[in-house]
Amino acid sequence: MDLKTLVIILATVFVAVLSFVFAFWLYLWVKKQPAKNKKIAHIGKLIKQGANAFLKKEYMSLLKFAGAGAVLIFVFLPKPLWSEGEKLLNHVVMTAAFIFGMIFSAAAGKIGIMVATIANQKTAEAAKSGISKSFLAGFRGGAVMGMAVVGSSLFGIALLTLVIGYLTKDYSALIGFSFGASGWALFAKAGGGIYTKTADISADLVGKVELGIPEDDPRNPAVIADNVGDNVGDVAGMGADLFDSNVASIAAALVMAASLGSKLGESAFLEMVFVYVALGLLSSMLGVMFARMGRDGNPTRALNIGTYLTTGLFAVLTAVATFFLEFEWRVWGASVVGLLVGVIIGLTTDYFTNDLRKPVRMVAKASKSGPAFTILSGVSYGFLSVLPAMIGIAISALAAFMLCKPLGTASGLEVEAGMFGVAMAAVGMLSIVGMIVSNDAYGPIVDNARGLAEMGGLGEDVIETTDKLDSAGNTVKAVTKGFSIGAAGLTVISLLFAFVIEVNDSAGAIIIQHFDIMNPIVFFGMIVGAAVPAVFSALLMLGVDRNAQRMVEEIHRQFEEIPGLKEGKEGVEPEYDKCIMIATTGALRELLPAGLFAIAITLVVGFVGGVTAIGGFLAGNIVSGLLISLFMSNSGGLWDNSKKYIEAGNCGGKGSEAHKAGVVGDTVGDPFKDTAGPSINTQITVVSLVATLFAELFLIISLFS
Amino acid sequence: MDLKTLVIILATVFVAVLSFVFAFWLYLWVKKQPAKNKKIAHIGKLIKQGANAFLKKEYMSLLKFAGAGAVLIFVFLPKPLWSEGEKLLNHVVMTAAFIFGMIFSAAAGKIGIMVATIANQKTAEAAKSGISKSFLAGFRGGAVMGMAVVGSSLFGIALLTLVIGYLTKDYSALIGFSFGASGWALFAKAGGGIYTKTADISADLVGKVELGIPEDDPRNPAVIADNVGDNVGDVAGMGADLFDSNVASIAAALVMAASLGSKLGESAFLEMVFVYVALGLLSSMLGVMFARMGRDGNPTRALNIGTYLTTGLFAVLTAVATFFLEFEWRVWGASVVGLLVGVIIGLTTDYFTNDLRKPVRMVAKASKSGPAFTILSGVSYGFLSVLPAMIGIAISALAAFMLCKPLGTASGLEVEAGMFGVAMAAVGMLSIVGMIVSNDAYGPIVDNARGLAEMGGLGEDVIETTDKLDSAGNTVKAVTKGFSIGAAGLTVISLLFAFVIEVNDSAGAIIIQHFDIMNPIVFFGMIVGAAVPAVFSALLMLGVDRNAQRMVEEIHRQFEEIPGLKEGKEGVEPEYDKCIMIATTGALRELLPAGLFAIAITLVVGFVGGVTAIGGFLAGNIVSGLLISLFMSNSGGLWDNSKKYIEAGNCGGKGSEAHKAGVVGDTVGDPFKDTAGPSINTQITVVSLVATLFAELFLIISLFS
Repeated sequence: MDLKTLVIILATVFVAVLSFVFAFWLYLWVKKQPAKNKKIAHIGKLIKQGANAFLKKEYMSLLKFAGAGAVLIFVFLPKPLWSEGEKLLNHVVMTAAFIFGMIFSAAAGKIGIMVATIANQKTAEAAKSGISKSFLAGFRGGAVMGMAVVGSSLFGIALLTLVIGYLTKDYSALIGFSFGASGWALFAKAGGGIYTKTADISADLVGKVELGIPEDDPRNPAVIADNVGDNVGDVAGMGADLFDSNVASIAAALVMAASLGSKLGESAFLEMVFVYVALGLLSSMLGVMFARMGRDGNPTRALNIGTYLTTGLFAVLTAVATFFLEFEWRVWGASVVGLLVGVIIGLTTDYFTNDLRKPVRMVAKASKSGPAFTILSGVSYGFLSVLPAMIGIAISALAAFMLCKPLGTASGLEVEAGMFGVAMAAVGMLSIVGMIVSNDAYGPIVDNARGLAEMGGLGEDVIETTDKLDSAGNTVKAVTKGFSIGAAGLTVISLLFAFVIEVNDSAGAIIIQHFDIMNPIVFFGMIVGAAVPAVFSALLMLGVDRNAQRMVEEIHRQFEEIPGLKEGKEGVEPEYDKCIMIATTGALRELLPAGLFAIAITLVVGFVGGVTAIGGFLAGNIVSGLLISLFMSNSGGLWDNSKKYIEAGNCGGKGSEAHKAGVVGDTVGDPFKDTAGPSINTQITVVSLVATLFAELFLIISLFS
Repeated sequence: MDLKTLVIILATVFVAVLSFVFAFWLYLWVKKQPAKNKKIAHIGKLIKQGANAFLKKEYMSLLKFAGAGAVLIFVFLPKPLWSEGEKLLNHVVMTAAFIFGMIFSAAAGKIGIMVATIANQKTAEAAKSGISKSFLAGFRGGAVMGMAVVGSSLFGIALLTLVIGYLTKDYSALIGFSFGASGWALFAKAGGGIYTKTADISADLVGKVELGIPEDDPRNPAVIADNVGDNVGDVAGMGADLFDSNVASIAAALVMAASLGSKLGESAFLEMVFVYVALGLLSSMLGVMFARMGRDGNPTRALNIGTYLTTGLFAVLTAVATFFLEFEWRVWGASVVGLLVGVIIGLTTDYFTNDLRKPVRMVAKASKSGPAFTILSGVSYGFLSVLPAMIGIAISALAAFMLCKPLGTASGLEVEAGMFGVAMAAVGMLSIVGMIVSNDAYGPIVDNARGLAEMGGLGEDVIETTDKLDSAGNTVKAVTKGFSIGAAGLTVISLLFAFVIEVNDSAGAIIIQHFDIMNPIVFFGMIVGAAVPAVFSALLMLGVDRNAQRMVEEIHRQFEEIPGLKEGKEGVEPEYDKCIMIATTGALRELLPAGLFAIAITLVVGFVGGVTAIGGFLAGNIVSGLLISLFMSNSGGLWDNSKKYIEAGNCGGKGSEAHKAGVVGDTVGDPFKDTAGPSINTQITVVSLVATLFAELFLIISLFS
């Protein structure tokens, strides 16, 4: 490793450490905000305990998975242990990378929850003294998570690269780190998603629908579980998901940069990746600093300014770096293409979920004819909404490829160079991930704050303020979601390429030169692969359903058996912990069928059709996964905002038939957008992991190939 | 063409003519059934007029499309007119084939409607004298359509093959015939689908929901339009769809058989296709003859016996023919694989829509918690239901390919031989298409009969009998639907291959050897192609929505402005024709955006990424099209039967909260299963048509390629 590269990697480590310091400063800032209300402190403590109980249980389940995964990785990766000339050290590094990938992601989640469960109380109380202070408490709480996620991913990857550079020279260990992140994300995102919707649906069903008590009423035994759910699903789960995407995109780019660099005898590509991600993190820090609002300002505007500022900073800073460090402008172009397409996807996605636009209003209007029309129009717009994002992903991949292809022309490495471009587009899209996570974690914090304000009896004014903050979170989410979905799309395309490199490497020859769609084995894999995201999300939703039924039963029991609960008698408190326990146990239990299915079907396809079928399988899986996750996320957001639009007094307002229909839409949309939709991304990476792990075995044993 | 081939083709023509004779006999039988009730005759006439009015309008719209299509085909196919050595005669035959493909399909639809609008009255009246006679009237009415569809497709194809064999030797003209069928199917299936659901939803919304009057109440201005819709959507539309699938599968098999045969210097492959399809039609005729029930028998059983008898007969007769005519057993194996997988897909699909099974009952149970849970559980099971069918299609394609591959080994034509196997699996699956169409047309006939019995005041007993017949139709539909979806899947795979042949032929060289998934241009096409079915179905559903709103307005107007209508005053009749007009005009208008979108996006992808992108585009389109159409068809059927299960007295029965939720599910499911889901198949073939037509231009002009 030459000096320039070393300096750049160390600088990246420095930026990562800087982000930790920044996160710590934000944490201290949040912590020193005033908190006096005893009731809020009590409930806040219950939420914190519930969240920690879930995390602990999750870690325990994870341990088994991590153990099995580590053993498999140790035996099979980078090549099976029994392969000729295989070095034990490479296996040790790979396995360690996998374990650290899990630990870093889990730690970021833990930090996020720790801050979020403090920030929710501070935000609620700050709302008493005005929206701008309250906003800052919520946003900075979220930003701690944002900095922790990005900082730890850069820190881990940079250190690992140093180990590789000086010790093994085997860059595929980076994929091991990424696999660790994916493994954890499966538990955190899908498990957390089941948890949060179980609690949400049950609380609403018994509370709002059956008994007619308001949201977040402290009499409701599921109300704490609901608030815990926001934290474990939307903070820890979302963080794990984006940690996974971020690490995967950087790892894929680095693996290709290293491969390309070693063939061309230069390290500039590798350096570019580090410079770009470090500048992305720096831009995010600045974005976070400048996201604030005036006393009567608009929280949506404040969040958007932060996001666009980060985007602009990234483009400018990387251009400056590219100029002074004499990097390839084509690569810069590819990542700016990614960034721009991210913005476009975000804006078009916003169109389908923004209550100022036609879709939300049409769905609200259709609700006047009853819930069937809420669903039909929502499904229709949800299906329409996939088009801009899919086209955006397709075009950015194509443009980035074409832009970077010439870099390899002289040396016959056109395809590799082009694919590196695709990976850099993903890196560009995810450059603002620190800001995305900050915005996303802001959502559940202010949502929780609203609940605490209600339960702590802080009065209508405070609730209204937190409502405003909450609604801003929803609007901004649509834009940032565009980035994360687009980047996930580009990243999994890069992972498919990584799979091919892995297989060819593993066989020591070019086994796979192309996956021909006209080859029936590829087609076989493609059709089966396309079915997987649908089945996976169905299993998760059925899991939510089963778990919610258990919890509804428990809520009914409590209202029947605890005297004075229904009437709200002073001093009578429901047994919150029972509901928390049901959500916790159920979430991890119901996660199993979906997870096992995804793993099992990958193995079946591999042993039937070999690596050829697996290529088709991954492609089918990616394509239909993008389609279904976009559909579910967007229609869910659309229904949510439609309901809110009606509640704001349109189409009959609260209590009208349209409102009832809107609530039905929102209830359907909840597991769509918070459980199934966002978990598909994780499903795709897990399937890629399994495919890569077993590639060698598929080469030896398969029915056709 | 040698004598044996000629005899076999002439024998096929003979079987086709035989089926016409049989259809005519069935028609006469239905016609001579007694009909005395004046009111029924009056309403029956209104339905007939409405259906014919729609058909006429549809034909007019079609004419423009057909004209444009014919000109394009004349200029571009088989190769562009300006190509060297291009013979004008080939263009004339191709264009004529296209036009006849449309005419034959449209004629079969017209015949089907003619009989269905008589059979519905006969079935209603026959129900007075018992279920077995009534069943026979309904079923034989449907069988006329079944025989007309299959007979005319065989007749057309056989004659065209003779023309080709003696005149041009250019078998690609068969694809022209298939394109004609697809073009018509787009109008008939998607347009009819919008029509039928517009009327159904509006009638229910105002009638059942707002006013609380029963289904099929003659006071409802939309009631005739609703019954017309059953005919134009479920009889003519469904017939056009299956005509299209059947013709496409036979044409694809013949093109490959001819290409393979000419290279191997033998005509046995071509002969096999004709022998098999002729025997399939013969088996269907026998199946129709034997589908009858005892006085107290079970209509479901009667229909199933017919289907399984046909299946068995086909397997046995083709085995006998293969033995005596010394055909290849491997090809027989491929078509029996298709047949068996068809049965398996049918049975597993049945699991998800049968009210004796878990999914329907779970959805009914979930309905007790409100409509959101009806939808959530229905969507979940709908997503799950795609798995067996997708795996079935994937496995049958792979197995048929592997089975027939060795036939080409000696001559280096392995891929061609394997692909011929895939086409023959589709032919095998569709061998019982005569029976499928008969069963499918039986559905709307008995549904209409139920309406006529209600409107004609034939009493509760008769309505109950027709209800039983109706429910049998729904159950059996699930099984036959498995065949048609599976076959469509296999056929479009064959069409993809046909596209490649066409491109290579057109360029006079092997331009496309493989569509590599790792090629970003292919991937670009694949992602965009996958989005198309979602957008297409969304546009259709939004069309239904808009059109239904217009009709609801009209119904409201009539109830307000026509004195005595709401009260059911003697002699007061609503203005049925106004509603019929709205449905008719709207259906064809709302069809436009979806159709234009599918065509435009194909052109855009082609001009951006050339034929390479189009290959990926078609693959993505097929895979996601299968996924979405299976999901929509199955979840729609599931909700329908769930509602019926509740209405049968379960989970609270009629009028309960569960029932209301079930009705919501059914309303959502209606356009899923009757408009969007089944139209996707047509969308895929239309896109293939456009891609093939413009392939030559894409070769010349494209941004990347």
